[in-house]
Amino acid sequence: MSQRTVFFVSDHSGVTAETLGHSLMTQFDSLDFRKVTVPFVSDLDKARQTVRMINLTEDADGVRPIVFSTLVKQEIRDIVRESSGFFLDFFDSFLAPLEKELDMTSALATGRAHGITDAQLYDLRIEATNFALTHDDGTNLGGYDQADVILVGVSRSGKTPTCLYLALQYGVYAANFPLTEDEFESRGHISTLPKHRARLFGLTIEPMRLEEIRGERRPGSQYASSQQVGFEVRQAEALFRKLGIPHLDTTRMSIEEIASRILDETGLERRTSQ
Amino acid sequence: MSQRTVFFVSDHSGVTAETLGHSLMTQFDSLDFRKVTVPFVSDLDKARQTVRMINLTEDADGVRPIVFSTLVKQEIRDIVRESSGFFLDFFDSFLAPLEKELDMTSALATGRAHGITDAQLYDLRIEATNFALTHDDGTNLGGYDQADVILVGVSRSGKTPTCLYLALQYGVYAANFPLTEDEFESRGHISTLPKHRARLFGLTIEPMRLEEIRGERRPGSQYASSQQVGFEVRQAEALFRKLGIPHLDTTRMSIEEIASRILDETGLERRTSQ
Repeated sequence: MSQRTVFFVSDHSGVTAETLGHSLMTQFDSLDFRKVTVPFVSDLDKARQTVRMINLTEDADGVRPIVFSTLVKQEIRDIVRESSGFFLDFFDSFLAPLEKELDMTSALATGRAHGITDAQLYDLRIEATNFALTHDDGTNLGGYDQADVILVGVSRSGKTPTCLYLALQYGVYAANFPLTEDEFESRGHISTLPKHRARLFGLTIEPMRLEEIRGERRPGSQYASSQQVGFEVRQAEALFRKLGIPHLDTTRMSIEEIASRILDETGLERRTSQ
Repeated sequence: MSQRTVFFVSDHSGVTAETLGHSLMTQFDSLDFRKVTVPFVSDLDKARQTVRMINLTEDADGVRPIVFSTLVKQEIRDIVRESSGFFLDFFDSFLAPLEKELDMTSALATGRAHGITDAQLYDLRIEATNFALTHDDGTNLGGYDQADVILVGVSRSGKTPTCLYLALQYGVYAANFPLTEDEFESRGHISTLPKHRARLFGLTIEPMRLEEIRGERRPGSQYASSQQVGFEVRQAEALFRKLGIPHLDTTRMSIEEIASRILDETGLERRTSQ
């Protein structure tokens, strides 16, 4: 069977077209797709270039490509629609019913979804990202009062990427505190955690998966040993229970899922500028 | 005029529903919406709870809410559709035409879009994020050979958030190198840049905007002064020209836009696991 090409065509960054297109294509997982993002199709020339690319791809593949589009401007959309690809446009499908429901016409302006439409919210995302970087891995404990949430967990349980994602995507101020063997034994900084209890959120992970992850990083190390991993995870979970910290098993979860669960369980606002 | 509530209802993380809904609602920017994400609506009970929440919101708002849904399972979608909200479902609109085009039925499986469907690609995003963190701000120059792209620019031109976004969203290995006054004068590490030329990408920014950004961070400082900012930006742009480094003015661009431009201009693959 010939490989299908899937185009994500956008007059802007392409993030919306990619996200929506991926969501749909993952429902057809037995097929092998080649994915091509075509961003910044913002004038008639670029629209015509895109059509040529789609048509040439059909010739090469022997099957017509699928084209997901988030083209806002009617005249650009109309050109790309004329390609030989199977054309699905997100605005086409949803704007008309929304205009009717809201009883107003839409702006039909490009670059709204992932541009800087709300500068204040956008700056918040950047500041939150800086906060995550300067409050990563137990640094700057003095700044915890500014945090919306403080993730607590053993090394490689997902704290750092989740904090960065919460910041970049949702403008949430997230710090993280690592539970290490030294900490469990000295009770140094751990003893300061209770005063931040309302903001703590625990991440845990199945020991077997953690062994695997740590083993890829430092093969054969004490750090990746079953004994060490088992000890740390037991201690971490005991701490969560003792302090009544809500927690989540991240073993089979993506960053997006972990972040969404945390926001859902803490009730933190999603400050999206997008 | 009464405020409308917009619900993003998902059986999973809610990222797709939020992306779709935000993209559409930004086209109606004269209206003030209250946005509520309802993730993990994965069983009939949660579907009924969601319906009650939507109906109560209509009573409170005095106008029916708009409901963007990415509910994959038919039986859950059918319940939420019965709320009093104005219901738009993403899969409803696109799956049927896609099934016909591909001549196959879709998996109708939840958690595909932002779960861990491709573990290898997912791990790549995490590893790329670690790479961005350990190669941020001119650290670990020895690791530049592993980088897909090395962003070069003055302080606060957008390098760090862009590197993190490229990693988290696209699994791209991105390092960044800061152009500081010290560097311009000593030509220390700058002199090592030419050997990485094929991977360099410059970020620049209008001096007035940079003054503003730096001024918010360190008001009245030399660092934020018009003289200092002007000097650094001129030097940076001269370096880009001298070494023939492709570059971008980030003044009016969001992280998503900067990242997408870089990928587009370098031809780097977007390694999305989503």
